[in-house]
Amino acid sequence: MTTLTSVESSLRTRPVPVGPDLVIGGQAVVLMAGPCAVESYEQTRAAAEAVCRAGGKILRGGAFKPRSSPHSFQGLGRAGLEILRAVADEFGLRVITEALAVEHVPLVAEYADIIQVGSRNMQHFPLLWAVGETQTPVLLKRGLMSTVQEWLLAAEHIAHRGNHNIILCERGIRTFETATRNTLDTNAIALARQLSPYPVIGDPSHATGRADLVLPAARAAIAAGADGLLVEIHPNPAAALSDADQSLPLGAYPEFVRQVGKIAAAMGRTVE
Amino acid sequence: MTTLTSVESSLRTRPVPVGPDLVIGGQAVVLMAGPCAVESYEQTRAAAEAVCRAGGKILRGGAFKPRSSPHSFQGLGRAGLEILRAVADEFGLRVITEALAVEHVPLVAEYADIIQVGSRNMQHFPLLWAVGETQTPVLLKRGLMSTVQEWLLAAEHIAHRGNHNIILCERGIRTFETATRNTLDTNAIALARQLSPYPVIGDPSHATGRADLVLPAARAAIAAGADGLLVEIHPNPAAALSDADQSLPLGAYPEFVRQVGKIAAAMGRTVE
Amino acid sequence: MTTLTSVESSLRTRPVPVGPDLVIGGQAVVLMAGPCAVESYEQTRAAAEAVCRAGGKILRGGAFKPRSSPHSFQGLGRAGLEILRAVADEFGLRVITEALAVEHVPLVAEYADIIQVGSRNMQHFPLLWAVGETQTPVLLKRGLMSTVQEWLLAAEHIAHRGNHNIILCERGIRTFETATRNTLDTNAIALARQLSPYPVIGDPSHATGRADLVLPAARAAIAAGADGLLVEIHPNPAAALSDADQSLPLGAYPEFVRQVGKIAAAMGRTVE
Amino acid sequence: MTTLTSVESSLRTRPVPVGPDLVIGGQAVVLMAGPCAVESYEQTRAAAEAVCRAGGKILRGGAFKPRSSPHSFQGLGRAGLEILRAVADEFGLRVITEALAVEHVPLVAEYADIIQVGSRNMQHFPLLWAVGETQTPVLLKRGLMSTVQEWLLAAEHIAHRGNHNIILCERGIRTFETATRNTLDTNAIALARQLSPYPVIGDPSHATGRADLVLPAARAAIAAGADGLLVEIHPNPAAALSDADQSLPLGAYPEFVRQVGKIAAAMGRTVE
Repeated sequence: MTTLTSVESSLRTRPVPVGPDLVIGGQAVVLMAGPCAVESYEQTRAAAEAVCRAGGKILRGGAFKPRSSPHSFQGLGRAGLEILRAVADEFGLRVITEALAVEHVPLVAEYADIIQVGSRNMQHFPLLWAVGETQTPVLLKRGLMSTVQEWLLAAEHIAHRGNHNIILCERGIRTFETATRNTLDTNAIALARQLSPYPVIGDPSHATGRADLVLPAARAAIAAGADGLLVEIHPNPAAALSDADQSLPLGAYPEFVRQVGKIAAAMGRTVE
Repeated sequence: MTTLTSVESSLRTRPVPVGPDLVIGGQAVVLMAGPCAVESYEQTRAAAEAVCRAGGKILRGGAFKPRSSPHSFQGLGRAGLEILRAVADEFGLRVITEALAVEHVPLVAEYADIIQVGSRNMQHFPLLWAVGETQTPVLLKRGLMSTVQEWLLAAEHIAHRGNHNIILCERGIRTFETATRNTLDTNAIALARQLSPYPVIGDPSHATGRADLVLPAARAAIAAGADGLLVEIHPNPAAALSDADQSLPLGAYPEFVRQVGKIAAAMGRTVE
Repeated sequence: MTTLTSVESSLRTRPVPVGPDLVIGGQAVVLMAGPCAVESYEQTRAAAEAVCRAGGKILRGGAFKPRSSPHSFQGLGRAGLEILRAVADEFGLRVITEALAVEHVPLVAEYADIIQVGSRNMQHFPLLWAVGETQTPVLLKRGLMSTVQEWLLAAEHIAHRGNHNIILCERGIRTFETATRNTLDTNAIALARQLSPYPVIGDPSHATGRADLVLPAARAAIAAGADGLLVEIHPNPAAALSDADQSLPLGAYPEFVRQVGKIAAAMGRTVE
Repeated sequence: MTTLTSVESSLRTRPVPVGPDLVIGGQAVVLMAGPCAVESYEQTRAAAEAVCRAGGKILRGGAFKPRSSPHSFQGLGRAGLEILRAVADEFGLRVITEALAVEHVPLVAEYADIIQVGSRNMQHFPLLWAVGETQTPVLLKRGLMSTVQEWLLAAEHIAHRGNHNIILCERGIRTFETATRNTLDTNAIALARQLSPYPVIGDPSHATGRADLVLPAARAAIAAGADGLLVEIHPNPAAALSDADQSLPLGAYPEFVRQVGKIAAAMGRTVE
């Protein structure tokens, strides 16, 4: 990995502020939770309430959904963004949501506190340049078959345009294993923290694809050094329009937070 | 691959016309050759001349280059398209070149006969929708991390918008092997021809990353059933601004064409 | 692949004699065909007859079967070897069969003309050393997870003990693709021929896992430079005790041989 | 993973006793540490002393080394076993060491408390059968490109012969990522614990290949539910005859143990 050797190792993490009283990459492990896709006001509000009750500060939810098949649900678009914002404001939460295309960036930046660049778009360079020209925090998911080096170079595409508010997200890589949707790469979490100044969070939902493995994966990510988690929760996972198998039911979320809190504490960190 | 079982197997290939006297997916194996990136008029003209002398009809060349690092050469943009078109017209060639972003599509469609959607963009859905709304032939590269099923579904994203002039291109997948840049997946060529109505071509340059393996990979692709090839050639590979290791020198191209022609003949096909 | 650079490139292939009138790695592409597992005298004799009628000289068949589950059929052992030998002698064929363990080597060497070292055993070093101490030709399958470099080093483990009658066999590697059992790596065929003095053959049956893809994979292997093929055929694939999905029925074999013969001819070679 | 559905989920772990006062799979996370290869009495004794001082009970070390190249150091054989046993007895430690071949099993069983079956041998069935016919605890490493299902079936090959004293070990899988030697699969640790009754440990040394990543990987493994760790330590890593890059120096080991102890405590476990 010779091209990375010029990067100083053991860089101090550069915290990313998300609003006046929250940083990612600071002392606390920050949880971001919510449904894969915004399906309705009621569904999103129920998830936001669960996030708030569990002490969380960031609501996730997708308004534009990248789907392998053109026949799958593609998201509510602007209506979804409006629901997200209204519900988040009601509970005092911040919003993270994905921009799927360059032309979505201004719209998403208007509604969201963090713009997510998804796994399939990690090397969609025009999108990286577009979010790089805002000052909104960007969560950059690792491509599902991208090396750590390519991931950090993708972050450089954003930083190069002037936006250094970058959060890296390891969401599992594609391997030969078929028992899980993806393989959580905890090595990559540790390595990205060592090689880059950006906070790194883990996505145990996509990294496993199975609700029964989300908790151990979340604990592993934090133990590897992750600065936060992105987790899918849903009022009724079985009826979810996407990612039904990997969403935690809302009732399981408080215990999930309690359990990951223990690992965070062992790492000398709090959870929020 | 149960979700594909609704697709009829052994579909007859739907040939894609490229201008009045050329089809891809017909009797002939169609070669598309040229430099990875358009660097100058002279370099592009030299490649076009080599294509023409070897009996070829399609010139490839990149004006917008997706590069892992923001510090690498990113292409000449519109100036590159103008060079491509001028040179191709001089030699009576068709042009294939990549559109990297939605906003490039009208521009690229103005200059090119075939719009290439690159490997990194195979699931960049807004781009698929944009090229789907033209009637210009689209060459859809398989993502280096995408299954055959995802590739065919990406093609459906294009077809669903009304453009059925689709050419699939297998360009090697990412595996654990490090001796070659990628692994040519000849199974995927055979399978895509069986499961979809679109012509399938191979890219032996990216599938190997090594000039010394381009010929065997090209032969293997045709023997697996490919309807064409996309090959990188350069007047001076050692000085190429990108893909130096995998470009064939122009002097080697006539023998390359002669050798692949033998395999095409064994498959009952001509080469053009 | 720096550790291979000491090996001369473009080595002349060292042909491996198999009996008085047959070499592998010579002018002819050599086909080895037969059932995955020897199940009965009748089944094996029917396959041998098909091999002979199609002009083939080598019968394959497994007497010791490595199976992922302890509950699967594990082969007939010595009785299987006796059937193979008797049937091969009746039709004037040579025999290739697998030795699964060090202690099988003398027994297998007594019955077989070529000892196969299977994919799972490519780095079972005591077995490599044991076959290295015979002079019987050894067919060394590439591990489904092994790099070309590891494969060539495994061959060195055999050669180092004195046996240079080595035939390499590419049988597909494990990748993320799930539509096929494995991914045929034609790059590896070309590369192994370039980097080593040993003949290289392809196994299109395991490399695809699907009977409908065996012919294109076989053609691709030969076009990439393979010196032979190892193919599974069965009198009644649907009833096969192993590898049912990938075995060709005997009735399809003559046409298979005819088709691969065309590609071999395009490569300037005959088939036997 | 349908063939696993017959296995009861959430099985209670069956602890494996190693001598009269130690179990693997019980309340404590059990650390096994020592050099990759036994090189000398002094080197091994220094490592054993470090293990003992850090409160550990199991010494690891290789006497038979599987090496990709026939020209690499292959281990001290029986002399290595004698050193291991003598040094372990001096410090009251248990010994784990690898049996590379069927014929090593009685010898290794004479000297060791746990027989290791290495990654390359996970599907070396005769070896599985041989260790299955002893009652000595067996540590079964996952193949570097084996699915969880294949791994559990390999364990069944052992259990089927009567030995249920099985410890599973996740040691990293081979993926496309090249910045680390392998990719630690924490999902597999959680899944194996859920699907099988055997304790599961992690090997952070092989799973990373880099000393600077061993601690985060170790923490992640325990947080995913691992019942123990297998760690390489060496008096002078730079001079190690194998695995120099991934061995921790002895001086770093006490802090390593202290740090993993915090995660174990967060999981409600002690470390020994």
